[in-house]
Amino acid sequence: MILYSFPNTCALASHLALEYAGVEYEVRHIKVRSDGKKPEDLLAVNPLGRVPALVTDNGVLTETPAILAYIAQTHPEAELAPVDDPWLFARLQAFNSYLASTVHVAHAHKYRGYRWADNPPSFEDMKQKVPHTMTACFELIEHELLTGPWVLGDMFSVSDLYLFTLAMWLEGDGADTSLLPRVLAHRQQVADLPITRRVLDQVGAMA
Amino acid sequence: MILYSFPNTCALASHLALEYAGVEYEVRHIKVRSDGKKPEDLLAVNPLGRVPALVTDNGVLTETPAILAYIAQTHPEAELAPVDDPWLFARLQAFNSYLASTVHVAHAHKYRGYRWADNPPSFEDMKQKVPHTMTACFELIEHELLTGPWVLGDMFSVSDLYLFTLAMWLEGDGADTSLLPRVLAHRQQVADLPITRRVLDQVGAMA
Repeated sequence: MILYSFPNTCALASHLALEYAGVEYEVRHIKVRSDGKKPEDLLAVNPLGRVPALVTDNGVLTETPAILAYIAQTHPEAELAPVDDPWLFARLQAFNSYLASTVHVAHAHKYRGYRWADNPPSFEDMKQKVPHTMTACFELIEHELLTGPWVLGDMFSVSDLYLFTLAMWLEGDGADTSLLPRVLAHRQQVADLPITRRVLDQVGAMA
Repeated sequence: MILYSFPNTCALASHLALEYAGVEYEVRHIKVRSDGKKPEDLLAVNPLGRVPALVTDNGVLTETPAILAYIAQTHPEAELAPVDDPWLFARLQAFNSYLASTVHVAHAHKYRGYRWADNPPSFEDMKQKVPHTMTACFELIEHELLTGPWVLGDMFSVSDLYLFTLAMWLEGDGADTSLLPRVLAHRQQVADLPITRRVLDQVGAMA
C-alpha cells in the first residue's frame, strides 16, 4: 500500500495505523499548496486533491475514518478496532466521525477559510475564532467522549491514533490546554508508545 | 430504538435506514434552535446537542456515518451495506465520510456561520458562497463518486439514503442542478422506492 501524506496533517493518523497494523507500506509526502490549488500528482490518485489517500490493490481509498476502519478490519490480528462487536465498533466510528466532521473542520477554518468564504476579513474572523472552537471541541472530548485510559476504555484502537493526531494541533491553534488535562495525558500516553515514536522519527526524517 | 430527528436535516438518512432495515423504532422530532442554543431534551441524550441521536439498548449513538453503518451491520438480512466485503464497505464509509465532513459542512455555512466566525458580514460572505460550494461538492459526486445506478454500483446501500437526503438540499442551497443530471436521476430513483415514500409521508405528517 502507498499512503499519500504530508506532515502535520490528519494523514498522520493513517500513517500510524499502517505501522501499528504491521502492514508493508510506503509513504509519499505531498506538499499541500497554501493557495488551495491541488497538486497534479495528488489529483491523479485522489480527485478531491487531499491527503490522506491510500493506494491499495483494490483502488484508492480516501477519508481518514474510512482508511482507519479499513486497516483495522483487514488486519484483525493487530486488534486496532473491535471488529466483532458492532456496538463498540459503532462508538469508534461515532468518535472518528466527530473528529473528521467537527474537530478537523474547526481547525481548517484557521488557514482554509477560502473554502467557505471569499473576503479576507471573513478569513481573519474565522481565524480569530479557532482557539475558542478548538477548545470547545476538545472540552467535549475531555468530559464526554474520552472514556479512559483509551478512547473506547480498556481497548486501544485507531481512535486513539486519530485523537493523538488532532491533539497535536492544540497549542498551534491556541486552544486553552489548561482545561484539557485528560486529553493531554492521553496524547502523552500515545506519544510514549514505541511504535508511535518510530513513526514520528520517520516523519521527522522525511520533513 | 428511538431516533431524535428533525425534518430537513441529515437525520432523515438515519430515519430512512431504520425503515429500510425493518427495525422497530420511534422517531422524536426535536426543534433545532436557529440561534444555535441547544434544546435541553436533546442535550440529555446527546451532549453535542445535535440530531441524529439514536437511543439503543446499549446507549446513545450519534454521527450519521456511524448510525448508518451500525444499522446495516446489525441487520445484515436487510442488505444495506456490503458487511462481508471490507473493500466495498470501505468505499461506502469513504463516501459517507465525504458527505459528512465536506458536503454537509459546505451546506452548514448557509445558516450556521456562527459556529466558525463572530461577525455578521462573515456570515453573509459564507452564505453567498454556498451555491458555489454545494455545486462543486455535487459535481465531484456526479463525475467521480456515484458509480451508478447506486452509489456503490449494483448494490443499493445506506450511502444511497444519505446521498438522497443531502441532495434534497440542492435547490434550497442554490446549487446549479443543470450540472448534476446523474445526481438528480439518483435522487428520483430513491424517492420512487415505496419505503422512501412511506418515510416521507410519515415525516410530512409529523411536520
